[in-house]
Amino acid sequence: MLALQGVTAGEMRTVLTKARDFERELRGRRITPVLQGRTIANLFFEDSTRTRMSFSLAAKRLGADVLDLSSSDSSVNKGESIRDTAANVAAMGADALVVRHKASGAAALVARAVGTQFGTSIINAGDGRHEHPTQGLLDAFTIGESFGRLDDFDLTGLTVAIVGDIASSRVARSDITILNALGAKVICVGPPSLVSPSLSVLGCTVSHDLDSVIDRVDAVNVLRIQFERHSAGHKALASEGEKVGGATLAKMPALSSVREYAELYGLSARRTGRLKPNAIILHPGPINRGVEMTASVADGERSVVLKQVHHGVAVRMAVLELCLGAPRG
Amino acid sequence: MLALQGVTAGEMRTVLTKARDFERELRGRRITPVLQGRTIANLFFEDSTRTRMSFSLAAKRLGADVLDLSSSDSSVNKGESIRDTAANVAAMGADALVVRHKASGAAALVARAVGTQFGTSIINAGDGRHEHPTQGLLDAFTIGESFGRLDDFDLTGLTVAIVGDIASSRVARSDITILNALGAKVICVGPPSLVSPSLSVLGCTVSHDLDSVIDRVDAVNVLRIQFERHSAGHKALASEGEKVGGATLAKMPALSSVREYAELYGLSARRTGRLKPNAIILHPGPINRGVEMTASVADGERSVVLKQVHHGVAVRMAVLELCLGAPRG
Amino acid sequence: MLALQGVTAGEMRTVLTKARDFERELRGRRITPVLQGRTIANLFFEDSTRTRMSFSLAAKRLGADVLDLSSSDSSVNKGESIRDTAANVAAMGADALVVRHKASGAAALVARAVGTQFGTSIINAGDGRHEHPTQGLLDAFTIGESFGRLDDFDLTGLTVAIVGDIASSRVARSDITILNALGAKVICVGPPSLVSPSLSVLGCTVSHDLDSVIDRVDAVNVLRIQFERHSAGHKALASEGEKVGGATLAKMPALSSVREYAELYGLSARRTGRLKPNAIILHPGPINRGVEMTASVADGERSVVLKQVHHGVAVRMAVLELCLGAPRG
Repeated sequence: MLALQGVTAGEMRTVLTKARDFERELRGRRITPVLQGRTIANLFFEDSTRTRMSFSLAAKRLGADVLDLSSSDSSVNKGESIRDTAANVAAMGADALVVRHKASGAAALVARAVGTQFGTSIINAGDGRHEHPTQGLLDAFTIGESFGRLDDFDLTGLTVAIVGDIASSRVARSDITILNALGAKVICVGPPSLVSPSLSVLGCTVSHDLDSVIDRVDAVNVLRIQFERHSAGHKALASEGEKVGGATLAKMPALSSVREYAELYGLSARRTGRLKPNAIILHPGPINRGVEMTASVADGERSVVLKQVHHGVAVRMAVLELCLGAPRG
Repeated sequence: MLALQGVTAGEMRTVLTKARDFERELRGRRITPVLQGRTIANLFFEDSTRTRMSFSLAAKRLGADVLDLSSSDSSVNKGESIRDTAANVAAMGADALVVRHKASGAAALVARAVGTQFGTSIINAGDGRHEHPTQGLLDAFTIGESFGRLDDFDLTGLTVAIVGDIASSRVARSDITILNALGAKVICVGPPSLVSPSLSVLGCTVSHDLDSVIDRVDAVNVLRIQFERHSAGHKALASEGEKVGGATLAKMPALSSVREYAELYGLSARRTGRLKPNAIILHPGPINRGVEMTASVADGERSVVLKQVHHGVAVRMAVLELCLGAPRG
Repeated sequence: MLALQGVTAGEMRTVLTKARDFERELRGRRITPVLQGRTIANLFFEDSTRTRMSFSLAAKRLGADVLDLSSSDSSVNKGESIRDTAANVAAMGADALVVRHKASGAAALVARAVGTQFGTSIINAGDGRHEHPTQGLLDAFTIGESFGRLDDFDLTGLTVAIVGDIASSRVARSDITILNALGAKVICVGPPSLVSPSLSVLGCTVSHDLDSVIDRVDAVNVLRIQFERHSAGHKALASEGEKVGGATLAKMPALSSVREYAELYGLSARRTGRLKPNAIILHPGPINRGVEMTASVADGERSVVLKQVHHGVAVRMAVLELCLGAPRG
């Protein structure tokens, strides 16, 4: 699974339905180890403890073995190309490669390098600004669960605001694709520099004024501000998550604009007070408390952040089983 | 399990007895994988290869899956709080978090952050200067085994000297608690700056003169000198183990005092020659040979250091099974 | 298994035959988890993602648990000796230690330190310039498979050229031993500074002129040039693999000599065009494309590099099973 773009709504629903069934089995501890004897290799050329752990847990719950190759490992450090590394791990007999890389298109590159010789599946765990398909799936799952749509994952009638640096966000790209496909309306919200009117070609509407839309949405998915590439003054806030390119660095360089951003687009108690009664708040994590939302909002009752994390495991189990479940022959 | 303080002698004996039974099963290769399908997550915010490997082996021997998140991982590095990290791993469905952190009370903090929502057990693998309960348990196990007390782990009649920086040592705190509870007498030995008379409130006696007690103890537990925070000149000796705070740094700053310390409190061939015939020597490892004891003492027949390491796995199996063995519902 | 030197041809064939059988079972997914309940510990004091992953996969395919202790782990970093680390891991109950270290003889040192107390097997995964026995085995396996010798692994009648820095190469040392034992002829090829006439005592012939032998060999095993210890200008090419000592640094210090080396000993399209019709090209990886061989040769149809990687897993399964398969009692 390289992207949600190009996947049909029916196929997305198949994944989500399987994830729902896995959650029920997990509660009853009745998981069948359908991937026993199979091996999943995590090839994380960009750090992400959370996503790696979630895929590892998903694989192990299905009986698969997990191999970790992180960017701190020697070959990755010392310049062996992503193509060579992936080809080698596939040759060793890994059944699936879970790939994260800071370059858009990296997972597709790996898929081409590995080919079909060893029957290896490639799963995109985030590639640059392109897509993060399992995050899109788990966001859709969480919204579906919150609004009682676990039967068919039909999100018709729901409106979801995605707030932040849409242009650089692989999470936004996967979310827009799946939410549209499942029938929800998507509004992208952020400053003009980060949310261009051209985003409407993806099938969403665009707004630069969060306060004008906050009272009519069912869910707000707040993206993470990427401080990683900013100056030392912001280092304390830096954390994992999807990375943005140099463009954002130029657009959002100073602490003053972070304060202004929080003022205009952060979720405060006042702003969340204007949400519809059942509206929920999502965030791909980890949260910069005090920037994208206040600590009390992050820990408040509308926040479904830990539910996203929880559902992420079942969604990844579903993806792994659908990619690998058929005997390899 | 956050601490031994507050645990009854009966409960301690239950853990030790189960550990003893696991060792017998291990010898016969008859271990039942009672934790199959369960997941243990190692959250080591402070490095400790040994303790982490011991917990991992214990978990795997019981059929559990193990996830490692060490302090070199991205989220931990980049400032995500220990609370957020733990809450996320719990939300993913880990059944137990094994937590090591340089701050006293960290495991309790994690337990509060995680709450009861996901049914997660928290196991303290060493928190600052507070406690290291599984080390206390394995020390008591090793003493019990050496003196033929495997039936009831009643240590009545035995006297144990703990030598070193008692004030800063979480190992000492856990050891004093369990040894007292099981009936042994404990003498804390070290220079006045590291062994205060106020330690007697913990139920031990205090001495500043090792030579005056060495011939009447059944076991000497030698604590590790922490060179990690000393000057560059000591770097070659620095290693893992329980860390001490800045206070110790001030108390023991110079190589000259290390030599003096070794002279007054180190175990030499001469000093160990005055031990009772069956007396044993423990050390939580890794040993600074030539400081806490000479190399020949460390490798000598009184040393039970490798036995401690060996029993540590069974003790951790017992703790994991007692914490997780009941079906989670 | 510490070395191939001293192993009989019959014993080598037993390993290779078992590896062949494992490959057949792997294709049919009929592997019996004969090492269930056993634990393999990877003690990699020198980085090697590839070899570590290959051993991990081999162990997991046989049902064993795997513990990783890499050189980035704390104890290793902080100066605990290789002897102490190995003794501790053995005391914890690991059934086998897979050891890689930059010092020749390290695996034997570990074997002596660990002793027979806990019944631990030691497997050499590369020690300095001494041996890399599983690489020798997988090279022999790959040659045997390419020339239809899977029945008896009798390599009589085949001639293998090993090209490069033979003097410093543990791969070369293991390859020469096994290829000779199995009946092949070995020609060591390289500049006089790296290929001394004294190598003939190992049972091979020596040549300094690749072009004079290229048309009469059945296989060319091209060793990796070690740029790790060269100047910053070569850093982009540096990668994992067997390391060479300071001597090589002195012998091959400048980029000019790298170009000259590639000219004289690199496999170009022109040079490989002179190979016998069925001749194959091996490389222990990772390849410095453009130095030891051109990219088109590396990816060409004579190259069996990915087959070597593939067979490596089965060979390591065979070694693990033969070392550990008998019940430990």
